[in-house]
Amino acid sequence: MARHLILNAGQLLTMAGPDAARRGREMASVGLVRDGAALVEDGIILAAGLRDIVLRHDKAASAKIVDAGGRVVLPGFVDSHAHPIFASPRLSDFEARLKGATYAEIAQSGGGILSTVNGVRGARQEQLAAGLARWAQRFLECGTTTLEAKSGYGLDLETEIKMLRSVAGAGGQTPLQLVPTLLGAHALPPELKDRREDYVKQVCEEMIPAAAREKLARFVDVFCEQGFFTLEEAARIREAAARAGLGFKIHAEQLSRSGSVGMAVKGLAVSADHLDCADASDIKNLAEGQTVSCLVPGSNYFLGKPYPPARRLIDGGAAVALATDFNPGTCPCWDMRMILSIACTQMKMTPAEALTAATVNGAWALGLGKSHGSLEPGKAGDLICYDAEDYREIPYYFGSTGVVWTMKRGAVVHSTEAPRL
Amino acid sequence: MARHLILNAGQLLTMAGPDAARRGREMASVGLVRDGAALVEDGIILAAGLRDIVLRHDKAASAKIVDAGGRVVLPGFVDSHAHPIFASPRLSDFEARLKGATYAEIAQSGGGILSTVNGVRGARQEQLAAGLARWAQRFLECGTTTLEAKSGYGLDLETEIKMLRSVAGAGGQTPLQLVPTLLGAHALPPELKDRREDYVKQVCEEMIPAAAREKLARFVDVFCEQGFFTLEEAARIREAAARAGLGFKIHAEQLSRSGSVGMAVKGLAVSADHLDCADASDIKNLAEGQTVSCLVPGSNYFLGKPYPPARRLIDGGAAVALATDFNPGTCPCWDMRMILSIACTQMKMTPAEALTAATVNGAWALGLGKSHGSLEPGKAGDLICYDAEDYREIPYYFGSTGVVWTMKRGAVVHSTEAPRL
Repeated sequence: MARHLILNAGQLLTMAGPDAARRGREMASVGLVRDGAALVEDGIILAAGLRDIVLRHDKAASAKIVDAGGRVVLPGFVDSHAHPIFASPRLSDFEARLKGATYAEIAQSGGGILSTVNGVRGARQEQLAAGLARWAQRFLECGTTTLEAKSGYGLDLETEIKMLRSVAGAGGQTPLQLVPTLLGAHALPPELKDRREDYVKQVCEEMIPAAAREKLARFVDVFCEQGFFTLEEAARIREAAARAGLGFKIHAEQLSRSGSVGMAVKGLAVSADHLDCADASDIKNLAEGQTVSCLVPGSNYFLGKPYPPARRLIDGGAAVALATDFNPGTCPCWDMRMILSIACTQMKMTPAEALTAATVNGAWALGLGKSHGSLEPGKAGDLICYDAEDYREIPYYFGSTGVVWTMKRGAVVHSTEAPRL
Repeated sequence: MARHLILNAGQLLTMAGPDAARRGREMASVGLVRDGAALVEDGIILAAGLRDIVLRHDKAASAKIVDAGGRVVLPGFVDSHAHPIFASPRLSDFEARLKGATYAEIAQSGGGILSTVNGVRGARQEQLAAGLARWAQRFLECGTTTLEAKSGYGLDLETEIKMLRSVAGAGGQTPLQLVPTLLGAHALPPELKDRREDYVKQVCEEMIPAAAREKLARFVDVFCEQGFFTLEEAARIREAAARAGLGFKIHAEQLSRSGSVGMAVKGLAVSADHLDCADASDIKNLAEGQTVSCLVPGSNYFLGKPYPPARRLIDGGAAVALATDFNPGTCPCWDMRMILSIACTQMKMTPAEALTAATVNGAWALGLGKSHGSLEPGKAGDLICYDAEDYREIPYYFGSTGVVWTMKRGAVVHSTEAPRL
C-alpha cells in the first residue's frame, strides 16, 4: 500500500517554475508559500502549496502529518560539483599556504594534488567507498540530498575506474544520491607529464569507453587550463564523451581565460564550472545557451582569492548554480549553507537567488532538472526542514548548520530532533 | 565526596604557558600532547599532560574515564566580544545591503541599529533572558564555554540596566558562563542625538554607577568612532569605569583611526577590539602594553570588507584574541570554528595561532586569564572534544561545527553522542 506523508511548513519554498534552469531574474523566485504543505507518496511529491489546498487532495486523508513547527521547508540541496573521494585531508598544505608557501613549493615538498593521487592510488576500493559513505552522512546532516562525485585523483585507467566503482559501492551504504562524473582529465599523471598526447588518448579511448560500458559515470569533466588541458584537448574529450553517450561538464575559465565557455555552450555541456575569469562574451554565451553556470565560491574563500562574477552572470541572464567543490586541497567544506553565506556576503547574490542556485539550478547542472530540485508533482520527495522562520535566515546565520531534519525520497535520513515518523 | 574525571585524547591541547596573554611567537604554541589526558576534580583541572603521567596522579584511581576515541580535546572557546541580547534578526537589512543599499538608506527605511534598539526597549527583561539562554545553547553546541554579553541596544538607563539584568537572568538558565559588559556608549540615542553631552553624562554619572552598584557588569565598553563617541568622551567613560571599579574595553580603530588604542593601552584596558584601521604605532603600543588585541573578522566577512591586520599584530609582538562579535547587524554567527576558519583563510593566522587566540587569549581579553582558557592545574574544567584527529582540522574543515561534546566545569553541556557520563 502506498505510504503518504504531509509536511507542514511555516514557509514552504516550492522552487516551482519553468521546466528549465532558472536564469537571470527568474532566480529571484523561490515559490514561497506561507502555511504551506507538501504531500509525498512513496517518496514522490504529489502536491505542494497552500496547506488548505493540499489537505483537500484525495490522498491527504490517510497521510501521516509531519509538522515543521512553523519553520522553513525547502527542497534538499543538489550539490553539483564535488570531489568527495580521497584518502586524507591536506592539513600540511593548508598550514604551509597560510605561512606563505607557493603552490610550487607545496608540490615540491610532497603536497598538492599528487599527494591525494598517491593516497587514492594506494587505497582499496572498499576503503574509498567507506570514506565516501562517511562524508555522505555529513552532507545529509547539512541538507544535501544529491551530490556529484567526481573521480580525478587516479589519473590512470585502473584508479579512475576504481574511484567510480567506489561511488557505486558507497551508493549502497548511504541514502545520499550520488551522481558519478569521470574526471580523468583533472591533471597529467606524473608518469606521463612529458607524454600528454598519450594521456589524452588514454582518457578518450580507454577511460571514457570503460566508464560508459560499466555504466559507472553519467558525465565526463575536464580541467581546461594552462598547464592542464588545452581547449583543443578538452574538445576532443567532449567528443569522446558524446560518442560514449555521456554528458559533459567542464572546469572553465578558472585560473585564466581559455575560451572554454564558448566550446562548452556550443557543445551543450550541462554545466561550465568555476568561471572566475569569464568575460562579457562568455556571460553572453552562457545567457543565450543551455549550459548552467556552476559557481564554487567556497574554494575562493578557502584560498583567499577574488570571487567569480555571480552578479554579472545573473544580471546578464545566465542560469547560476552553487556547489561546494568539496575536496581536500581547495575546499574542505560539505555544508551548502556555508556556500550560500559566501554567495550572499561575498558575491552579493540575494538569499532567494542563492537558494535557487543551490536547489533547482543545481539539479539542472546535473541533468536532473526534470526530477529533482523543486517541490512539484512527480519530483523526488527530497526535503529539508531548517530551524528558521524566514528562509533568509539560512544564509544570514553562518557557521554551524541549522538543519533540523533531512528527508530523501520521503524518508528521514538525518534529524536533530527525536524522530517523529 | 569529590568527583573525578579523566579525559583521554588523541591530541590534547593544554594551551599551557606563561601567566599572561600569549603574544607574538608565543601564540604558535598550543601545548600539544599526543595521547594526553586531563584530570578534573569537581570541575577544576587537577592535572593535564601525557596520559601515562596523569594516570599516576593519586586521584586518578577513583576517576571515571571519558575516552575521546583518539580525537582532539582542547579548552572551551572563550568568546570575548559579543552582543547576544536582541529581540530579532535583521533580515531585511541583510537583503537590502546585498542589493546595494547604503547604511544611511537602511537606517532611513527603519533598519540599522535603531531597529534593534526599538526591539530591545519594547521587550521584557524575561524575554531577553530567555532569548539569550536560547542563543547560549547554540554557543555551547559550537564549543564556546564562556561568552561576553554586551548591553548597548538600550541607550537609556532603564533599558541598559534591563539588558544587564537579563544577562544575570539567563545565567541561571544555561551552563554557558556569561561575562556582562555595559556598552551604554554604543551609539547616541535618537532622542538625544543633538544633546550628546547629556548622554555622555548619563553614561558616566548614572549608568556606570548603577551597573557597578548592582554588580551587573564587569566591564564598560565604548564605541570610539567618528559619528559615535570621541576619543575625549571615551577617556571620560574609561575614567568613570575606573572610579566605579569596573574594567574597560573599547571598540577601537574600527572604521577610521582615532588614536583610541593609545588611550586604551595607557589606561590598561583589558582589550582593544576590531582594530581594522590600526597603524604601525598602534601595533607597537599593543605589543608593549598589557591590552589584548581582540579581532572580530566575522563582521568583516559578513559585510564583505577588508580584514584587520592580524599578521602585522602578531608579527609585531601583540597578543591577539579572536571573538565572534555575534550581533544581528554585522555578524549573525555564534560559531567560533567559523571565526577560526576566517582567521586562517583570510588573515593568514596559523591554526595554532587561531586556537590560542580563541582560548587562552580570549580569557585574558575578559580578565579571566588566571582561571580560564588553558588546561592547567587550578583552572576551570571547560573542555571541548572535536571530531578530528589533528587539531589543524578545526579551522580546515569549515561550515558545520565538528564539536562532539562540550564540557563546562566538568559537566557535559552538549553532546552529539549518547552521553557516557
